[in-house]
Amino acid sequence: MTDPADLPATQAARRLAEGSLSAVEMTEALLARIADREPVLRAFAWLDPALALRQARALDAARRAGRAAGPLHGLSLGVKDVLDTADQPSQYGSPIWAGHRPRSDAACVALGRRAGAVILGKTVTTEFATRHPGPTTNPANPAHTPGGSSSGSAAGAAAGVFHAGFATQTAGSIIRPAAFCGAVGCKPSFGTLHRAGMKVMSESLDTIGVITRSVGDAALVLGGLTGRDYGKPETRPGTAPRLGLCWGPTADQAAPETRALLERVATAAARAGAVVQPLEMPAAVVAGLAAHPLVMNGESAAALAWELDHAAPLLSPGLRERLQWGAGQGAAALAAGRAAFATARAAIRDLFGEVDAILTPSAPGEAPEGLGWTGDPAFNSLWTLLHLPCVTVPAGTGPRGLPLGVQIVTGFGEDAAALAWAEWVRQAAG
Amino acid sequence: MTDPADLPATQAARRLAEGSLSAVEMTEALLARIADREPVLRAFAWLDPALALRQARALDAARRAGRAAGPLHGLSLGVKDVLDTADQPSQYGSPIWAGHRPRSDAACVALGRRAGAVILGKTVTTEFATRHPGPTTNPANPAHTPGGSSSGSAAGAAAGVFHAGFATQTAGSIIRPAAFCGAVGCKPSFGTLHRAGMKVMSESLDTIGVITRSVGDAALVLGGLTGRDYGKPETRPGTAPRLGLCWGPTADQAAPETRALLERVATAAARAGAVVQPLEMPAAVVAGLAAHPLVMNGESAAALAWELDHAAPLLSPGLRERLQWGAGQGAAALAAGRAAFATARAAIRDLFGEVDAILTPSAPGEAPEGLGWTGDPAFNSLWTLLHLPCVTVPAGTGPRGLPLGVQIVTGFGEDAAALAWAEWVRQAAG
Repeated sequence: MTDPADLPATQAARRLAEGSLSAVEMTEALLARIADREPVLRAFAWLDPALALRQARALDAARRAGRAAGPLHGLSLGVKDVLDTADQPSQYGSPIWAGHRPRSDAACVALGRRAGAVILGKTVTTEFATRHPGPTTNPANPAHTPGGSSSGSAAGAAAGVFHAGFATQTAGSIIRPAAFCGAVGCKPSFGTLHRAGMKVMSESLDTIGVITRSVGDAALVLGGLTGRDYGKPETRPGTAPRLGLCWGPTADQAAPETRALLERVATAAARAGAVVQPLEMPAAVVAGLAAHPLVMNGESAAALAWELDHAAPLLSPGLRERLQWGAGQGAAALAAGRAAFATARAAIRDLFGEVDAILTPSAPGEAPEGLGWTGDPAFNSLWTLLHLPCVTVPAGTGPRGLPLGVQIVTGFGEDAAALAWAEWVRQAAG
Repeated sequence: MTDPADLPATQAARRLAEGSLSAVEMTEALLARIADREPVLRAFAWLDPALALRQARALDAARRAGRAAGPLHGLSLGVKDVLDTADQPSQYGSPIWAGHRPRSDAACVALGRRAGAVILGKTVTTEFATRHPGPTTNPANPAHTPGGSSSGSAAGAAAGVFHAGFATQTAGSIIRPAAFCGAVGCKPSFGTLHRAGMKVMSESLDTIGVITRSVGDAALVLGGLTGRDYGKPETRPGTAPRLGLCWGPTADQAAPETRALLERVATAAARAGAVVQPLEMPAAVVAGLAAHPLVMNGESAAALAWELDHAAPLLSPGLRERLQWGAGQGAAALAAGRAAFATARAAIRDLFGEVDAILTPSAPGEAPEGLGWTGDPAFNSLWTLLHLPCVTVPAGTGPRGLPLGVQIVTGFGEDAAALAWAEWVRQAAG
């Protein structure tokens, strides 16, 4: 008998929908796994098993009463703790917000409940989804960081303690931790999931996405949340993609294992029928990346104006310093940075006539050792500011046995294609 | 002796900075005016005079202790009640949020306090800044609506009960009520003021701005909030503008008084040296406007997902209906609508090579009679979706003696020019 906690979301959803698995059974299986893993994993900022089971019981009762099952009926979501929950604390990874109880759910959380999901618990975020880390460890090796800022959602998805974790990305906070933990991360096109009820830092950049065990699971969950059809990525399409192999302006940040990985994956993709061609970023795109720190920190300084003026000693020194730097660049420079973003977005559009998807690193290399640093978003900030859908898929391990991922990027709004080609590449890479 | 409440913000700021007027004296004068006007005006959703005076006393004490005065030292801001305040309830114009006390200030409120402003009180908003009206009356005639959704900020600024009211616009919620009340309204370029701590409805549209007594006051307040230089609009520039007279795709919504007004203002501007030419909107821009209701209501339906699922009976029937319609269009249509917006924004850019500013109606006509309907945003939605800076300035009265305004629109980021040309046009129109 399979442990229900081992089922990917796509399979669990089928069994939950047909009634051969109850929401309570599903949730109990995940809670048992959490009891096993959480002492080392520390993925949760808050978890109340009794509350999770109450949600599951209510879902089962609704089924018995004849109510139609939602598309995510009985699946469990971990919610990054920068997203509000009406029934659970929302503490944004900061002591300033300790014990905070919002009155309402964030929009994406409410949509998850509406789709029938159990809101299992709150997952660890770095401080305000910036850099100062939480206690979460990498499920592949607890001496290593899981990455961040969506640390708990990445570690928890990879460890199989929920079906999907909500995550957010301003620089590399979905893709990098997902890759470090051996999970699938999907940052959809900017604006896909409404940010109401999120502790937003950068309005120009912050994007809500999901971290899951498989690409098919990501498509299922995003479809359940938005009502949009994200396809069935596991169904192999009849054609192979034209892939642009792109190291981007941060090529020199790639560790040797990442160089070897991309070459291996590109070769395997070509062998499976893909047309793989090197892709250079236009100068206007590179110029956009130069503005990323300024826009991110400048906007974050405004977002945290209240915290800066009322609780500055409770901010980490590193964050205080970056906010001060961001604010110090001035409003005119901030506007110029946003204009550089807009120019970069226009410049990237034409490239997708030549390729179906971009193949690029998910991170510089394996997850760094230690829990003090969540790693470098060098291979993520560009795609975030371009607002493009990004998917990272696991692709083997590095020299220390830790997971590696590769990233697939498509044109704006081509989210279903990003998922499909990511799964295609994953299968081709073997 | 001038009543300090009569001073425009620019003059009050000078006297407060030099110390010839204390923050307490300033606040007391405004509170006296409020005591006089508020029983009929009903601009405030919440006001605690003692709290306002405590803020003023603290500002005076800081001055006496030698602390430098902020750029808005001692000025008073009314805060539209879709913006969070840590020391005052934030009820979003909805019984669902009755008595809600946020833990923190919205970013723009925190920046106002940092600049030395008194956060005087919360101003009436329609339900979630949509259509269902509050109790505010038009200061020119209490039998007429002040417009909405920024009803209290428009009525309060026009009545002189504070120096500036924070306002927000998704369709026409800054410019229209400001024009109806005879105030100056400024919707800056999209993204100017961070929306952290705002009850955001449409992420693609919602823009925070200000409503003031004069254009110079708007420049002062926006500059004090952002640190950016918005110029001195009251200083007449050496040149006259090239104005594009634009009726736009909603030309047939203009009442006779608005037709006569625009013709009068265009003639006066030409006489004062402006080059005035008619301006047609490109087809791509008009197509963007067609997508406005879909994007606004589709995104708002996501924003209010929690309210819809937990408190639907407390939403007005009209809002429920519009949200249902918006959600019913589907995620693909929503994405297509946002794409139409992006195309429209690209298409408008070239027009600003030919003109310095667009001259266009602020509203169809005078404020409608009665308090049940806040009027039509027909002349506002287009500029909101284009993300362009808009300023309305008072320009005489209509057949029933109620204020009329004209609207000046400039290219993205040209906010200082929008303010300067709006004041130029106001002076030229006499």
